Amino acid sequence: MSGRSRAAYARRMTPHAPHAPHVDPAAGAAVKAADRAHVFHSWSAQGLIDPLAVAGAEGAYFWDYDGNRYLDFTSGLVYTNIGYQHPTVVAAIQEQAGKLATFAPAFAIEARSEAARLIAERTPGDLDKIFFTNGGAEAVENAVRMARLHTGRSKVLSAYRSYHGATSTAINLTGDPRRWPSDNGSAGVVRFWAPFLYRSPFHAETEAEECARALQHLEDTLAFEGAGNIAAIILETIPGTAGIMTPPPGYLAGVREICDRYGIVFILDEVMAGFGRTGKWFAADHFDVVPDLMTFAKGVNSGYVPLGGVAISAEIAATFETRAYPGGLTYSGHPLACAAAVATIHVMEDEKVVEHAAHIGETVLGPGLRELAERHPSVGEVRGLGAFWALDLVRNKETREPLVPYNATGEANAPMAAFGAAAKKNGLWPFINMNRTHAVPACNVTEAEAKEGLAALDAALSVADEHTA
Amino acid sequence: MSGRSRAAYARRMTPHAPHAPHVDPAAGAAVKAADRAHVFHSWSAQGLIDPLAVAGAEGAYFWDYDGNRYLDFTSGLVYTNIGYQHPTVVAAIQEQAGKLATFAPAFAIEARSEAARLIAERTPGDLDKIFFTNGGAEAVENAVRMARLHTGRSKVLSAYRSYHGATSTAINLTGDPRRWPSDNGSAGVVRFWAPFLYRSPFHAETEAEECARALQHLEDTLAFEGAGNIAAIILETIPGTAGIMTPPPGYLAGVREICDRYGIVFILDEVMAGFGRTGKWFAADHFDVVPDLMTFAKGVNSGYVPLGGVAISAEIAATFETRAYPGGLTYSGHPLACAAAVATIHVMEDEKVVEHAAHIGETVLGPGLRELAERHPSVGEVRGLGAFWALDLVRNKETREPLVPYNATGEANAPMAAFGAAAKKNGLWPFINMNRTHAVPACNVTEAEAKEGLAALDAALSVADEHTA
Repeated sequence: MSGRSRAAYARRMTPHAPHAPHVDPAAGAAVKAADRAHVFHSWSAQGLIDPLAVAGAEGAYFWDYDGNRYLDFTSGLVYTNIGYQHPTVVAAIQEQAGKLATFAPAFAIEARSEAARLIAERTPGDLDKIFFTNGGAEAVENAVRMARLHTGRSKVLSAYRSYHGATSTAINLTGDPRRWPSDNGSAGVVRFWAPFLYRSPFHAETEAEECARALQHLEDTLAFEGAGNIAAIILETIPGTAGIMTPPPGYLAGVREICDRYGIVFILDEVMAGFGRTGKWFAADHFDVVPDLMTFAKGVNSGYVPLGGVAISAEIAATFETRAYPGGLTYSGHPLACAAAVATIHVMEDEKVVEHAAHIGETVLGPGLRELAERHPSVGEVRGLGAFWALDLVRNKETREPLVPYNATGEANAPMAAFGAAAKKNGLWPFINMNRTHAVPACNVTEAEAKEGLAALDAALSVADEHTA
Repeated sequence: MSGRSRAAYARRMTPHAPHAPHVDPAAGAAVKAADRAHVFHSWSAQGLIDPLAVAGAEGAYFWDYDGNRYLDFTSGLVYTNIGYQHPTVVAAIQEQAGKLATFAPAFAIEARSEAARLIAERTPGDLDKIFFTNGGAEAVENAVRMARLHTGRSKVLSAYRSYHGATSTAINLTGDPRRWPSDNGSAGVVRFWAPFLYRSPFHAETEAEECARALQHLEDTLAFEGAGNIAAIILETIPGTAGIMTPPPGYLAGVREICDRYGIVFILDEVMAGFGRTGKWFAADHFDVVPDLMTFAKGVNSGYVPLGGVAISAEIAATFETRAYPGGLTYSGHPLACAAAVATIHVMEDEKVVEHAAHIGETVLGPGLRELAERHPSVGEVRGLGAFWALDLVRNKETREPLVPYNATGEANAPMAAFGAAAKKNGLWPFINMNRTHAVPACNVTEAEAKEGLAALDAALSVADEHTA
């Protein structure tokens, strides 16, 4: 390790200690009252939620107005890869705000050019043109539009156990229950099953078998849908909220080969898995696969300013050299958002955040979570890598029956609710989706913080254990 | 006028003089080169565009790296209502960045609560719950989702000559050629004709006649589509990019009455017309009409940070009190974006930006544009109010034949291209859409700046005049 690297590593390992929590319950009550009067929250029955008023955040922690501090094992919604309030990125936003906060998309702007260049340098293969959006859903919308116009075909295949966003096409591609209430206008979307050995749709018993059967299933689906009618296949490289199912070796390369054979555009959605989360810049780097289009958001600037985008291959970009690309948005390539991306990428390089995510996964999170699984009857499987881990909670390790039914609410979901409450009581804010908890802290979480999180999970899993059979 | 108001007025009327243009052609060339290598631009054939590298902007002006300064009569894409780099809003962004740049949507956050409160205080009627998005397209997507779930119906009616955004549902609702290449998955969208006396779809000769016939046309369309099948009617209160056609008195009230009669949700899209553009907080305020849902973006924080949203009536909010609203996004209620909105709204109040927009429209832009129309054979009609004006350019004032055909490109569009080039040569960056130029400067544009813009338009219109018959 070079001297410079060592210094950067040391910097990373001694993050700024979080400020003392700001304790002012009256201020918190005012924030909460205005929230309840006027803020309509995502994915919620507005009358049944009780949003915590948060006063501040730093690094891997946040705190409320009552003196409670939480270790954030969610990274927000798995997006603050460099943690909260990184001083370098904050300073870059402040500087860009003072220079040129916003400018329309049709112009060449320094921060926009530089962000595109830095992203293109890191994306796999020839994904060298960047179309900027405000977030992941719009990235998916535009990737699908590009694929349809590039191929002249309309159908798009996506996987069950997936999430691609909440605008019309993005939600219709999504393979989880959040799609159901918006399940209209989905003409042209076909869903298939991706590999997931622990709950194999193909009754496979080994990774090799799961991979082969999943590829056969995809080929069969193409045969019955008409491969020549398919514009694109879209997959999360490693599905995120759906359960962090790392695909078996050979699967993504197999999909790539199938796409090439039938002239289908291969879209990898790296909104959650990209920008260091898995211990590489992009999850695709683990599999040596280059898609035709890759969507990103979240980690690109740790969400400090809304930003997403599509990285575009040379071949697809060529389609729109002399033919107008029919999509766009007012804030495409927003200077403030792009300046935050430039600073974030530099921070990730200088402080070796990507390497650290790999390291913390290999040395602390992976071993620690597996050790918990051995001791807790409620942990059916540990899956993941980097700072991207899932615990699949079960009633019974033998039958693998989920701790709560698929899409459970209310009383049926009580075991997971009890698990969540216990985690919070132990100072950990957990990521919970159905019968799973994900350990997805900031990618620069320290060893001590990761261990603190594991200890809190240990206590909370004891509560989950009470609900096993 | 009170002493305080006079002071605020004086402040507004003496904006900071723009910095001397930053002249550094080499820096501009580097920005441009990286742009051409890596930035994929909205709505463009990538090989046929030549994006101007912009070095900076302040107030109503921006400048390039070669020493050229332009008066921006586009406000970006009609969104920088308070002009570029307003120091109060810049400072608020810098302060929030240092405090809490980002936090996930499920929490109560001071900037989020306060932005929602300030917006809800200004929206008409009981539109008191705010669902935040990243921009206008997602606002429209969510408004339509709310309407469909609230009514249990699926069809949505929108108008030709409209723009609602570029995600799947938003683009399918759009009534301009940008929709055509994405014209799939549009199940449930029905388009109708809205009033536009100058090019009347109904062969009307007076505003009253246009209004009555447009309402009859809408009633007829409902009868043939099945009024009981319609979830929503969406209209831009005053259509923006489509041509700034102020609806005749009584039209919007008539649509409101029709919606009430059939249980249809009335959505007003105020993404462009809202937040002061028309000389009132919302364009709906001119017509004393309260929709059920109102979409906004752009002017809410002058686009300094990406932000949009939906203002929701009490009745529709009640639908989602105990039933989960099935939509959301990672950056909903983004703290940095909300802090920019809070500061922008305070600036607009303190500096009387809304009142100023009305004043400059009544005293300078309106009279000045009408005077140009009298002298220039190419100006068929002047329409608008506030800082929101369109010149409908024609080959022949009698026949009203547009100066270029609908959706013209290349040689067919040469007259408008020549007009645009002449405006730029005269230091004015013009908004051009088809056969129209819009005068849509910052809402706090000074009298002197507005007159400078009128003089440049005068010169450019002389070029357009050469193409009249």
